[in-house]
Formats: sequence, C-alpha cells, structure tokens
Amino acid sequence: MPVGGKSTVYFMIADPVDHAKSPGMFNGLFETENIDAIMVPVSFPVSGFETSWSSFEQMKNLRGMIVSVPFKGLAFAHCQHANPRASRVRAANAVIRQSDGSLLCDNFDGAGFVEGMKRNRHVMRGKRALLVGAGGAGASIAFCLAEEKVESLTICDIDGDRASTLARLVAEEFPQCQVTTGAPDPRGHNLVVNATPVGLKPDDPYPLDVDRLTAEMTVVDIIMQPRETRLLQRAKAIGCAIQFGQEMMDCQMELLADFLQVRGKVEVE
Amino acid sequence: MPVGGKSTVYFMIADPVDHAKSPGMFNGLFETENIDAIMVPVSFPVSGFETSWSSFEQMKNLRGMIVSVPFKGLAFAHCQHANPRASRVRAANAVIRQSDGSLLCDNFDGAGFVEGMKRNRHVMRGKRALLVGAGGAGASIAFCLAEEKVESLTICDIDGDRASTLARLVAEEFPQCQVTTGAPDPRGHNLVVNATPVGLKPDDPYPLDVDRLTAEMTVVDIIMQPRETRLLQRAKAIGCAIQFGQEMMDCQMELLADFLQVRGKVEVE
Repeated sequence: MPVGGKSTVYFMIADPVDHAKSPGMFNGLFETENIDAIMVPVSFPVSGFETSWSSFEQMKNLRGMIVSVPFKGLAFAHCQHANPRASRVRAANAVIRQSDGSLLCDNFDGAGFVEGMKRNRHVMRGKRALLVGAGGAGASIAFCLAEEKVESLTICDIDGDRASTLARLVAEEFPQCQVTTGAPDPRGHNLVVNATPVGLKPDDPYPLDVDRLTAEMTVVDIIMQPRETRLLQRAKAIGCAIQFGQEMMDCQMELLADFLQVRGKVEVE
Repeated sequence: MPVGGKSTVYFMIADPVDHAKSPGMFNGLFETENIDAIMVPVSFPVSGFETSWSSFEQMKNLRGMIVSVPFKGLAFAHCQHANPRASRVRAANAVIRQSDGSLLCDNFDGAGFVEGMKRNRHVMRGKRALLVGAGGAGASIAFCLAEEKVESLTICDIDGDRASTLARLVAEEFPQCQVTTGAPDPRGHNLVVNATPVGLKPDDPYPLDVDRLTAEMTVVDIIMQPRETRLLQRAKAIGCAIQFGQEMMDCQMELLADFLQVRGKVEVE
C-alpha cells in the first residue's frame, strides 16, 4: 500500500545515508507483509544532531529509528532508557518510542553476529577468539563473544588505546573470559573475526595475517559487500569454515524488526 | 521499488497528519511512475516548529515539503525565498530546496482552484464572485479569482476582521477588481465558492444561504470529502453548474508535483 497520513514512520539516520541497506530491506519487508509503515533514510551533519534529535523527539508519528555511523554514541546518550547491550558499549543502533513517550535504545550488532553464527552451527563456547577491530561493531561483538563463553578473546585494533579500553571493559563484565589485546595474528586461535572495514574496497590489504590461518579455524567477516571478501576467499582456500557478513545482517534485521515492533500494533499517540 | 538509502525524501508536515491525503497520492504516483522517492507524513506540535524546521534545513536528503495546517504561515516565514502566490497570502503549502541549499516556497491552493475551474470550462473572467471563507485556502483563492479578472469579489467570513483584511489586500494588489465584504448571500452573484470547512461533517449546516441560489449560478465547494457536499447537492437540484473540491485537489497535486520536481533529476547534495 502507498504510504499515507496514517502510516507508521521509522527513520534510519546516518551520514552519509545513501549506501545504507536497512531502509531498502525494511521497506521490502513492509511491502511483502503488507505493513503500513515506512523507513525513511535521514542524513544530517553531526553538528546538527542536537537539533535533529529534539525534532525527532517531538515527531508524533515517528515510531522508532535505526541508527548508524556517526550517530550511535550520540543516540545512546540522548535516550532516556537503554537495554544492557547498548549500555555496555555506550552505543545505540536502534531506538523505539515507548508507550509513555520515552525513548529506549538497544544495540544488535553483536546479537546479530551471534545469531548468524548459531544459525550456521558455528560454535563459540570454549573457543579461542581473535577479534580484529574494536570500533562500534567490534565492541558490540566482543561483549557478545564473551557472553557466549568463548574461552579467550584477543582484541586487536590499529588504535591500541581503543583495543585496551575495550578489553578492560569486557573483562570487567565477563571475568571468566580471558581477555587480552594483541596483534592481528591468528596463531593460537580457532575463531577469527574481522570487524574492521578493511576488505570493502577491492585493493584493500588483508585485515589480518592470512598466512597464519589454518584449516581448523573458523573465519568470520562482518563485511557484506563483497559477499565473499578476499579474507574469506583465502580462508576458504585454506580449508577454514567461513561465515559471511550478510548472515549477521540478516539476523540483525530480524532482531531489529522485533525490537521496532514492525509487526505489532502501534500505540504511539 | 522499495525506498532505500538513495531515495529522495519529501515530508508532508501537518498536525494532525493522519487524515492528510497528499502522502498517499504522491506515493501512489511514485509507485506508478517508478520514481525513487517517498513522501513521509510528519506531525509535531506547533511549539516544536523552530526545532523541527532547523532539523529539516540540515537534512541532506530532504528535497522538499508539502505544508498544511497549522504550519503554513510559519513555513512561509522561515523560507529564504517565496514565490508571489505565497508572499501575498504569507502562507506556504510547498517548499523546495534549491541548488544553493536555500528554501523556496509557493502556495498552490488558489492555483489548483483556478486550474480545476478551467479544466471544466467554468469561466471566471467577468463574474461576480461570492467567496465564503477567508482562511488559508480562501485567501489564496481570493487573490487568484482577482487575478483571473472576476468583475467583483464579495468576501465573507465569520471573523469579520479577517474578511476585511483580506478584502483590503486583494484590492490593493488587483485594483481593477471590486472587492467588498458581505454576508453569505448569493444574491447578485453568479459564481459562489465555499472555502470553509462547513460541510465536512454530515450534520453541518449550509455554509451559505442556499435558498437564494438560482440556476444561472456556478457553485463550487473546496471540500473533498464527501465528494458531493450538501451544498453541491442542493445547488445541483436547483440547476446550478457545480464544481467538486476533488478537482481543485487533483490540479493542485499536478502543480505541486511540478514544483517539487518529482519527475526531475534531483541535484541536492
């Protein structure tokens, strides 16, 4: 059905927003399932965040938002309520307006990762994980890997401070997990995750030392485009089990759809 | 096509917005003509106008807006540029972002009225017009009737000050037109226009003295729902030529689509 005055509105905020996949995926879902809602891509400069957020707060027919770079931290800081997965990384990637009008945020980067792994029967419990990339997605994945009881977690980032800060926070919350920082070297690990953007462009280097991958390792890339990154190609050739970024995204979409209540009755004023 | 990150975004701002027809009509057009754009209904309280407008100004992928009650005057006041039809009524019902980023507004209420009349070969030139209702739509229509060279124009409103202010402004701009204020009495007129909301509800009274309608008069209602108002039913029974509100809206939609460049290449940053 075409979007009309009664339609439920969601925003997807990012800057830039033109490469965002969520609006197309959600709007495809709305069409397929005949849901009277729309997800609108919205882009503005970081300097305009306060004003824009105030405007969103006042927008009566705005049900919720998906939040991407560079607004995840700001959105978290401006919500009245946050679920634990958002609080521990101090970053939101989804916001829902509650029945009292307040805004609640959550973060599904790591949860989507975990769900995608489980769907393909990739075990995390007891693994020795190497996580390359301690940015927004990486941080969210780090906590979730610890929550899924990996035995150890090595965190690697070109920004050493960022890696050690994240390692400290994860270790505080999950003391049973051995969390350290280290080099992008797969040796001694059996679960290897790329959570950097390295591999998006065809001439990118490898994000980690692929010469040290061995066949018993599971290699995961969170990059969606290309579907099979150079890292995954190389890992597959070596005989590793691999996991595509798209699978994390697909699972994240389902979790987001539940959180944003796209199939539920909308009770916003 | 589903709306995605690259889609052009239009807002339709009103409060309330749930009865607005423009989003459904425009989005139907976008679907039919395979235009990658969306018109999003947006509603917020008047007290939030300044904040919301600042947010809209900063939103990079917002191409333009349709503006309805209660924001028409505020939107006009906040645009950097205005076309004459908006300036003379100090009210905007459409806003487009120009290539330099500035906002230009226009007002198509009266223009849609005029186009609808012409399409059905209802002559305005030389007529003695009675206009009931000097609100936003009425004001826009008043100027356009004078522009179309009605011989005289009687303006009637329950708010006498509003009627006389409008009459003075129209007379100043179109001195060849005899503009006066008066009662909602069709006698002496041959073009009778209802520009009030009276007739929207089934138990509304008539907006003017229907006992004084005669067959040589043309009677126009700007109300769209019901299509044939009690006023138009009565006029038809008397033998008057009649014009439906929907025809004004259809023409206005086409003018708005041109102004908002929905079929043109979008060159916003």
